[in-house]
Amino acid sequence: MSAVGLIVEYNPLHNGHVHHYTRAKEISGAEYSVAILSGPFLQRGEPGIVSKFARAEMALAMGADLVIELPAAYAVQPAEWFAYGGVALLHATGVVDSLCFGTESGTLDLLLPLSRILAEESQELQEEISFYLRAGMNYPAAYSRAAAAAAGYPGEESEVLQILQKPNHTLGLHYLIALHRLKSPIRPFTIPRIHAGYHDEMPAHSAIASATAVRRMLLEQDLSAAAPYLPESTLQILSREFREGRGPVTWDSFRGTLMHILLTSSPQELESLHEVTEGLEHRLRRLIYSLKQPQVDELLKALKTKRYTHTKLQRMLTHILLRHTKEQMSPSALSQGPGYLRVLGFSRGGQKLLKTMKKTASLPVIVKPSSFEHPQLTLDLRASAAYANAFPGPEVHHIFRDYMEAPIRTFD
Amino acid sequence: MSAVGLIVEYNPLHNGHVHHYTRAKEISGAEYSVAILSGPFLQRGEPGIVSKFARAEMALAMGADLVIELPAAYAVQPAEWFAYGGVALLHATGVVDSLCFGTESGTLDLLLPLSRILAEESQELQEEISFYLRAGMNYPAAYSRAAAAAAGYPGEESEVLQILQKPNHTLGLHYLIALHRLKSPIRPFTIPRIHAGYHDEMPAHSAIASATAVRRMLLEQDLSAAAPYLPESTLQILSREFREGRGPVTWDSFRGTLMHILLTSSPQELESLHEVTEGLEHRLRRLIYSLKQPQVDELLKALKTKRYTHTKLQRMLTHILLRHTKEQMSPSALSQGPGYLRVLGFSRGGQKLLKTMKKTASLPVIVKPSSFEHPQLTLDLRASAAYANAFPGPEVHHIFRDYMEAPIRTFD
Repeated sequence: MSAVGLIVEYNPLHNGHVHHYTRAKEISGAEYSVAILSGPFLQRGEPGIVSKFARAEMALAMGADLVIELPAAYAVQPAEWFAYGGVALLHATGVVDSLCFGTESGTLDLLLPLSRILAEESQELQEEISFYLRAGMNYPAAYSRAAAAAAGYPGEESEVLQILQKPNHTLGLHYLIALHRLKSPIRPFTIPRIHAGYHDEMPAHSAIASATAVRRMLLEQDLSAAAPYLPESTLQILSREFREGRGPVTWDSFRGTLMHILLTSSPQELESLHEVTEGLEHRLRRLIYSLKQPQVDELLKALKTKRYTHTKLQRMLTHILLRHTKEQMSPSALSQGPGYLRVLGFSRGGQKLLKTMKKTASLPVIVKPSSFEHPQLTLDLRASAAYANAFPGPEVHHIFRDYMEAPIRTFD
Repeated sequence: MSAVGLIVEYNPLHNGHVHHYTRAKEISGAEYSVAILSGPFLQRGEPGIVSKFARAEMALAMGADLVIELPAAYAVQPAEWFAYGGVALLHATGVVDSLCFGTESGTLDLLLPLSRILAEESQELQEEISFYLRAGMNYPAAYSRAAAAAAGYPGEESEVLQILQKPNHTLGLHYLIALHRLKSPIRPFTIPRIHAGYHDEMPAHSAIASATAVRRMLLEQDLSAAAPYLPESTLQILSREFREGRGPVTWDSFRGTLMHILLTSSPQELESLHEVTEGLEHRLRRLIYSLKQPQVDELLKALKTKRYTHTKLQRMLTHILLRHTKEQMSPSALSQGPGYLRVLGFSRGGQKLLKTMKKTASLPVIVKPSSFEHPQLTLDLRASAAYANAFPGPEVHHIFRDYMEAPIRTFD
């Protein structure tokens, strides 16, 4: 039994993802595939355009055999914890023997040796990072500098630093580091990411656009504008979700709620929440006054400084929205890893994987969330309920779908 | 200088209020009038149909000289604290010498002696109330029973008990008790409340309907349906507010936000909030599952039992929405009384009152909330911001109007 692992958001699943999936199966030679899919809120700190259930359906329709949810505790985090959560879940299945991820370069030549050095996470590396942060750099920049120095490639012009300026290299590096830390036998592969304009290996009449570009088409135009960039199954799922009032969901869907929370929380309450650091609790409340309109994107623009990436700020707003505390998201809590394998859906092949996992899995496999308790699961159910509450046409059934429906099965 | 005090909500101000105001001026013989007006959220635990500013305008247009805000800490409370807050503010002005309120009977014959007995608030009375609460009564019923017994009129058929079953008698009783406790020289008067069908003293072409009935006409029909029951000034103010996207505001305007808070708060967090008593934190979360639609009125219907009045439950939801803690609303905090006289608006007559109040007022007179700090004021500004955030067309200017605009003046 051989299965390749993918760590994905599918927001929404487009032709580029299909290409990656197909190549991943070819390169790994795996019979099955397991996708670790982020729940309702994504790594960049924004809600998925449709629910986790709809995105899991897209994955299954493409051919994925088993879709496991990446808990919110890891899904809305910087690359280190996001990667650690995803890799730990793949490792915990006991059935995944390869991991395939996209990078800008399509090679692990530099990333593999670098990951071995950084996996040790020396005190020195941490001190280096703190030094650059104090110097006013944002976190990703400080990490890259410190990592390059730790690997013996210091200096502005070092190749390592150049490479880590590409976000998928950083994510890939953290997948590799996680594999080292978990002493996982999973073999890593990388595939060069394809981009708009890259057509050679694509079927006729299909085209590539980034997920960001696809979402913009969906929001600013309509489904038909995005159609050339999406497989038919994604189109149908999006069309059904939109028609039935379950999307498109954006930060704007949470405008009223987020503003209410900011307006009714004391600075002390805000400061207890994850990512609300260095006096941002005061800055947040002060800035609302200065906005032209009380909109989330206006707030993000006003908050932006050189010190904070847009992504860090968006993640902070997600943690405020979902009331994720510093305590719940502390390094000591997160380093324990995900506490369960939550099944969102499976194919007939996935059913076989699940059967094997009864023996091989090192974490509980959750099919009915109501029958299990875990602090991370509480946050997942909360995120899912809050997400569905923001639908244009919210229904109790959607708010509690986690409790009310079995995982998606693509067969009878 | 003589001024009559009124404690009001004006949600919205209708012909019945005009009648009461006119009679109050006549009976008291006062030259001026001071209205204590609830802020954005009202005694029954619901948002005003338009903002406190708009309702203050209605009062000034009718002829009120000075409009003072009843802080949220007292406005959204059972009769005892609501009355105590309102009377304490009138007393603190040092210019109000009479208080005029409506009752069903139009006489104080029974209420005055009863209030003298109850003002002492013996340990016994409290024990009596607890006894009836434990027996399964809701609070108003338990209070009436205990009060009748304390006054020496026990038994189902006692006249006192009959009287206290009318809500305006209870409110009136608590105004009188508050006057006793404050040792206030303010003279109380009562006027029989007029009701639908009562036309004798009304000008031609005007009619009486309750504020509840007027709101229903506004929400289910339109302004013209409510027109016969409203003075022209109220009509114009409502029309402008609705047209400019600042109303009508109802619980439905807070649906998404309230549900989000309920779905993302732990039972422990809910239990720390005012009025969330006796395990209601669990009941609340459990009941959301059983709703047909995730709507506030559905939730209230599901929550209702013999033990809790609809009003108590609505107030609880307001405290949850605004994050009012048990600590902030404790008897020891509330018994200190309101901490300031917040001016919402004034006429030329009101300007004279304010000038006199520089010498007579026993509390700070707040014209610009940004220049003053008080825990109650923090809650008022929060309530006001949260209220404006729920407008169909929210604007930063509305959200922070408390900071940004001077009180309403009806003259140049």
